[in-house]
Amino acid sequence: MEQEFASSLLENAVRELSRLPGVGRKTALRLALHLLRRDESEGVALGQAIIDLRQGIRYCSVCHNISESEVCPVCASPSRDRSTVCVVENVRDVMSFENTGQYRGLYHVLGGLISPMDGVGPDMLEIDSLVERVAAGDITEVILALSATMEGDTTNFYIFRKLAPFTDLRITQLARGMAVGNEIEYTDELTLGRSLLQRTLFTDSFRS
Amino acid sequence: MEQEFASSLLENAVRELSRLPGVGRKTALRLALHLLRRDESEGVALGQAIIDLRQGIRYCSVCHNISESEVCPVCASPSRDRSTVCVVENVRDVMSFENTGQYRGLYHVLGGLISPMDGVGPDMLEIDSLVERVAAGDITEVILALSATMEGDTTNFYIFRKLAPFTDLRITQLARGMAVGNEIEYTDELTLGRSLLQRTLFTDSFRS
Repeated sequence: MEQEFASSLLENAVRELSRLPGVGRKTALRLALHLLRRDESEGVALGQAIIDLRQGIRYCSVCHNISESEVCPVCASPSRDRSTVCVVENVRDVMSFENTGQYRGLYHVLGGLISPMDGVGPDMLEIDSLVERVAAGDITEVILALSATMEGDTTNFYIFRKLAPFTDLRITQLARGMAVGNEIEYTDELTLGRSLLQRTLFTDSFRS
Repeated sequence: MEQEFASSLLENAVRELSRLPGVGRKTALRLALHLLRRDESEGVALGQAIIDLRQGIRYCSVCHNISESEVCPVCASPSRDRSTVCVVENVRDVMSFENTGQYRGLYHVLGGLISPMDGVGPDMLEIDSLVERVAAGDITEVILALSATMEGDTTNFYIFRKLAPFTDLRITQLARGMAVGNEIEYTDELTLGRSLLQRTLFTDSFRS
């Protein structure tokens, strides 16, 4: 289809927009026409923000979180607890934990989970660099904060074995149990059984 | 929330992306992280395409369709029939008619429909410029190709009255009837009645 849109600029924008996940050609056209209806400055700001994002962001050399500098703000902060490392799957999980406001330690972003089905092996993840960080000596606790899925469990276990030689290291994982707000009636048996086995002192819930 | 994303570049990209219609903050973050995972060139191409689109596209001074030059390719083409003008609501409708491959005349983009409910009056649309084009003399037929809605009918009638002084001008509108592929059982009575009143010779369907 030559010049379907009577404008190569529009054609080009639609093609690039439709590369985004969940954006088909029709949606891309709708977005492009929306941009044309709005102020020029708004469209230019969007385009520039995307370019800046892609050119300016790199990955922290310590924890592999996204960063604008060699070392990310979390790793560089003097107020964070440098003895605790929370191991997460990806950058978005870092944001989730930061948004809880409950964590003051450091992170380690694996960049994925071990998944033979998807062809992701341990060597494709930042596991060796985690072992190196632990070997350096300052870390006393590693929190395995991965999804409660088959892939998460596999990765947890692989990391656990890799870190086993560090006998002084405390290796913990996220509590598994009922989600806050859930009803027993609608909670699956596995989760219910787990939450029963790992029950906590009622008085502990007063500490926040 | 200062630095929710630990990066002002990411924060900025998410804010700009979430201005797009149908894109909330969560989707914007997903799009931004997607861009970060892909090649740098892909993200830069998207950003540049959006900037080029917004800075390079203007509107045809004759028909008000989008264009990269003073006059759009349709209006500039020597092979189009300059005696027929198809009046449409917006730029997207021009694309729809072009995609039918059935039309060789020119267009006139109104930029909307008269809608008192939405505060859109005739003076906010390109109706005066249509009358000027007709007054210039080369046009022998105006096709009113607006939606079959209350607003479309109102606008059709307003334009019809504005063009009434040009007694030699043929003013037509789109045929209304059953959509191709529709079943009688599921076609509403208004449409069915209309298609009965405006029935065509069976032999006409052999001409395409």
